[in-house]
Amino acid sequence: MKKLEELQEIISEAVTRLSFPIHPAELYEPISYILSIGGKRMRPALLLMACDLFGGNVDEALAPALAIEVFHNFTLMHDDIMDNAPLRRGRTTVHERWNKNVAILSGDVMLIEGYKLMMQVKDHLLRQILDIFNNTAVGVCEGQQIDMEFEQRNNVAINEYINMIRLKTAVVLGGALKIGALIGGAELKDADLLCDFGEHLGIAFQLQDDILDVYGDPEKFGKQVGGDIISNKKTYLLIKALELAKDHRAVELNSLLNNKQFDNVEKVRAVTDIYNSLNVRQYADTEMQEYADKAFKALDAINLPDEHKQYLRDFADGLMVREN
Amino acid sequence: MKKLEELQEIISEAVTRLSFPIHPAELYEPISYILSIGGKRMRPALLLMACDLFGGNVDEALAPALAIEVFHNFTLMHDDIMDNAPLRRGRTTVHERWNKNVAILSGDVMLIEGYKLMMQVKDHLLRQILDIFNNTAVGVCEGQQIDMEFEQRNNVAINEYINMIRLKTAVVLGGALKIGALIGGAELKDADLLCDFGEHLGIAFQLQDDILDVYGDPEKFGKQVGGDIISNKKTYLLIKALELAKDHRAVELNSLLNNKQFDNVEKVRAVTDIYNSLNVRQYADTEMQEYADKAFKALDAINLPDEHKQYLRDFADGLMVREN
Repeated sequence: MKKLEELQEIISEAVTRLSFPIHPAELYEPISYILSIGGKRMRPALLLMACDLFGGNVDEALAPALAIEVFHNFTLMHDDIMDNAPLRRGRTTVHERWNKNVAILSGDVMLIEGYKLMMQVKDHLLRQILDIFNNTAVGVCEGQQIDMEFEQRNNVAINEYINMIRLKTAVVLGGALKIGALIGGAELKDADLLCDFGEHLGIAFQLQDDILDVYGDPEKFGKQVGGDIISNKKTYLLIKALELAKDHRAVELNSLLNNKQFDNVEKVRAVTDIYNSLNVRQYADTEMQEYADKAFKALDAINLPDEHKQYLRDFADGLMVREN
Repeated sequence: MKKLEELQEIISEAVTRLSFPIHPAELYEPISYILSIGGKRMRPALLLMACDLFGGNVDEALAPALAIEVFHNFTLMHDDIMDNAPLRRGRTTVHERWNKNVAILSGDVMLIEGYKLMMQVKDHLLRQILDIFNNTAVGVCEGQQIDMEFEQRNNVAINEYINMIRLKTAVVLGGALKIGALIGGAELKDADLLCDFGEHLGIAFQLQDDILDVYGDPEKFGKQVGGDIISNKKTYLLIKALELAKDHRAVELNSLLNNKQFDNVEKVRAVTDIYNSLNVRQYADTEMQEYADKAFKALDAINLPDEHKQYLRDFADGLMVREN
């Protein structure tokens, strides 16, 4: 079996070989630009990994893996417009470097290019794989819409939040694994189980991200610790705290969210104190573990040799204890 | 053979039956909204027409026809953002009624829904039809990008303009006809010829639109006569006039384009006078006729009974002498 790093390297190298027409330049240059910004190429690597695990030829999964990466970057290009983000991984976003119209239209073409790449599968898999891709793509759009709606709401429930991160983040992981498994020759039942594994792991991973944003080691966590608190982002921790806080704590938490006079360090400390007093970290850890357990349960049921399952377990473990 | 009006009616009725999920509301309501604004449903009707002409079952072409209509409305939703358009057919545009983020994301989902509908064809046609759809969709995006670039340029050549309207307007007509023909059982050669017919006719139609905007009967022309002149739109007429105007006429034309002190009536009259003095209408008529001739030449070569070809000739004639 190929190592994850090896698969990521295959993708990175293939991305640099992806070529698009030269004209119209403002339509195609942003595609090469956003793809060059990089990232861990985790989604397409998972697709290759699934193919490899079921004994498939990784070369046959390369175009669909690139489709997932192109699709993912299309969502980033459009999300960055919607979020008014000036930077992505330290580089100027497309709508800032060119303009919003360029980012809209270039993103549209990326989605179509994603379909073109995804279609590079054998005929007998074409419809099945495109159905998965369609459902994945619709899910991601729904997740983004729900996430934007959350910004305007103060009564988000935990189950709504879990559904949002499932759609926005986890379905792509599940979809990538399922497509890779089918290309690798897996039975539909096993491909579905691997999809469940990826989806549950994706939810656990996002919950861990919420936890690390507050409790992570600043030396190891890639982003600014407390960033979610500063921006009032509705994470699992904040939603749980809003649900649990009563009386003076509720008043204090709402004051911290609504007043702009606090400096950031003070706000992070005060909100973290409230989180601690309400034990929200423990709730989050428990929920995260539940989804990790569901992922492992799905994995156990897959018809794969033990050493292949162990590979996936090690991968999941590596994902879940990162950087804190 | 079914009449065009009958096919348009089938589409209109089917569009009202298209249903999308209720949640998230801001993702799906704009889709139903923009589809309800209406229009002539010409593109999907052409797809059904092509299927019918080759003896196919129109019911089998209905989902792909709806795909073309959903795709077309996706392009309208995103184009309206890019053009800052407040109204479409007298109704508030999606980005005005909701906001730009809603229009971006809802449009994205429409493109995916277009693929889902387009996939409702028999297995042996799936790849071929999706390839046509992909090429059509990329072409439309390229056309929109080139059109936006033209706004910033003063040296657009006629052949660049023709290529732009081919991409932005004509390839969808060609693509719709080709897909319909294949579903109807046409040989690829005949489907390609019908595609050429549609593409050339689309170019001729757009050139006629440019002419009618200036020379149309205000009673019969749907839009404000002279609207293109008022907005300095780079139509065939303006590009040809800029190419032909020398000395004082060139100075006068550029002054009319660059100064904002002219009132609209005065500007339309003065620019039309320049067009007349340079015979640009005759150039446009000649070019339009050339593309109409190319369309009819493609039609002649198609392997179809004479009465079916006559049907298409009558359709083209009806399209080319409308409302002036």
